[in-house]
Amino acid sequence: MKTEIEQRVEKSYAKQNAMKNIGAVITEIGSGTVTIELPFRTDLTQQNGFIHAGIVTMIVDTACGYAAYSLMPSTAAVLTVEYKVNFISPALGDKLIARGRVLKPGRTLMACLGEVHAVTDGKEKLVATMLATMIARDQVG
Amino acid sequence: MKTEIEQRVEKSYAKQNAMKNIGAVITEIGSGTVTIELPFRTDLTQQNGFIHAGIVTMIVDTACGYAAYSLMPSTAAVLTVEYKVNFISPALGDKLIARGRVLKPGRTLMACLGEVHAVTDGKEKLVATMLATMIARDQVG
Amino acid sequence: MKTEIEQRVEKSYAKQNAMKNIGAVITEIGSGTVTIELPFRTDLTQQNGFIHAGIVTMIVDTACGYAAYSLMPSTAAVLTVEYKVNFISPALGDKLIARGRVLKPGRTLMACLGEVHAVTDGKEKLVATMLATMIARDQVG
Amino acid sequence: MKTEIEQRVEKSYAKQNAMKNIGAVITEIGSGTVTIELPFRTDLTQQNGFIHAGIVTMIVDTACGYAAYSLMPSTAAVLTVEYKVNFISPALGDKLIARGRVLKPGRTLMACLGEVHAVTDGKEKLVATMLATMIARDQVG
Repeated sequence: MKTEIEQRVEKSYAKQNAMKNIGAVITEIGSGTVTIELPFRTDLTQQNGFIHAGIVTMIVDTACGYAAYSLMPSTAAVLTVEYKVNFISPALGDKLIARGRVLKPGRTLMACLGEVHAVTDGKEKLVATMLATMIARDQVG
Repeated sequence: MKTEIEQRVEKSYAKQNAMKNIGAVITEIGSGTVTIELPFRTDLTQQNGFIHAGIVTMIVDTACGYAAYSLMPSTAAVLTVEYKVNFISPALGDKLIARGRVLKPGRTLMACLGEVHAVTDGKEKLVATMLATMIARDQVG
Repeated sequence: MKTEIEQRVEKSYAKQNAMKNIGAVITEIGSGTVTIELPFRTDLTQQNGFIHAGIVTMIVDTACGYAAYSLMPSTAAVLTVEYKVNFISPALGDKLIARGRVLKPGRTLMACLGEVHAVTDGKEKLVATMLATMIARDQVG
Repeated sequence: MKTEIEQRVEKSYAKQNAMKNIGAVITEIGSGTVTIELPFRTDLTQQNGFIHAGIVTMIVDTACGYAAYSLMPSTAAVLTVEYKVNFISPALGDKLIARGRVLKPGRTLMACLGEVHAVTDGKEKLVATMLATMIARDQVG
């Protein structure tokens, strides 16, 4: 049976057209941690054939955002205040795995650390690291 | 007639499947500045119906990247080292306009500043600000 | 006569031992903008004889922080949530000038842009650019 | 006996007037990791009596910089390209400990992750997290 956190995250995620569009799926929802996977697709690439930096950012932003969301009161919504991403190796492989986790839960703001790895033949390689700030907002409606 | 810079940027941009995929187009290429526009589409949204932060990032990253590329030798390729984005208001409107410009050209590294505005009925509103580092790499092949 | 904003900023600044310690002074306080100057001193340098990146950061963080503070209610305190700094040329010259300004005032959070220039014989050169998030907190006591 | 890395780092560190000025000391030099400690001092504080964000940044920047330097060829110099810092809790305690480590060594660029903890009665609390880019430059002279 699904936890309350899993239900909340999945309900919100289902409304994310952009994530559906690129074929990303949530594969793990913990308390302060979320994992998202993205199978490689050639329609998501930049000029060198790597997954576009913006797409890499999108999956790890979403992983960090829901990691923060998982620690917020059930009436809150989550928004990204800002993030920073370092790109460490090309986003090439069978799939990308983005893992987000909350560094320290706060009442309003949550600092999160995220990592994206490329998986090729079962081996992981670090692609990008994110340091982000998420905010809890009162849900509208 | 197109300048050498315009030709180089357009040739590289044509290989960016991800940018084509979301419907973004380059509307201005200068010396150290590039503008990209993205008409609003509901398949690019997050859970609140705004354009996803990752998509906002993608267009301003690309604008900053080509702004840097426009100042590089014609044999170089451009890669994103890292960026930081602050999200200032919801990405909602008829379209988004991302403008990137080089703060100071360097031989290898270029610091760039980017802005995304949402345009509604011809009026612009600041959506996001990016501070990025681009690198010139020797072209492979 | 001093404005209410100038009085508030100067009162808070007077409590900043670290800023006094390095010899930095506020030279301009506007509505959403603050300027701080730091005369060059050899006891603030790193291994190459440039002003240390941390000191460059300190003056532009403070300029951005008070720029945000100048737009907050008089009962609020300001704290730095996070910042990002790109270092563009060596911090060398007669003095450094740090200018901070609010990109868009928010009720709680304020995104700020800051710049540091080195001044040599009256000529300015860009040293660093900051993109920061400030938060308004209820004053304690 | 000191390793070649320890000797190089210590020789460079000895030239850092700013670090001497604030009383920071290197306490560990590994291969891709460096630790710096800063005893609390009231002349390093901001308006609330916490160690100034710029000083917190200074020690973790230096820890990250030397972590990168430890993996560079002995003829190289290290410079900070950019960094981002999230401030998570007040810099208050008996001392601060800054730990920097290289995420992935590169020929020219190194992405580094840094953390600052405040130590009070032997207990550590996370104060700040840094994500930084360092560059190897040919030594001048």
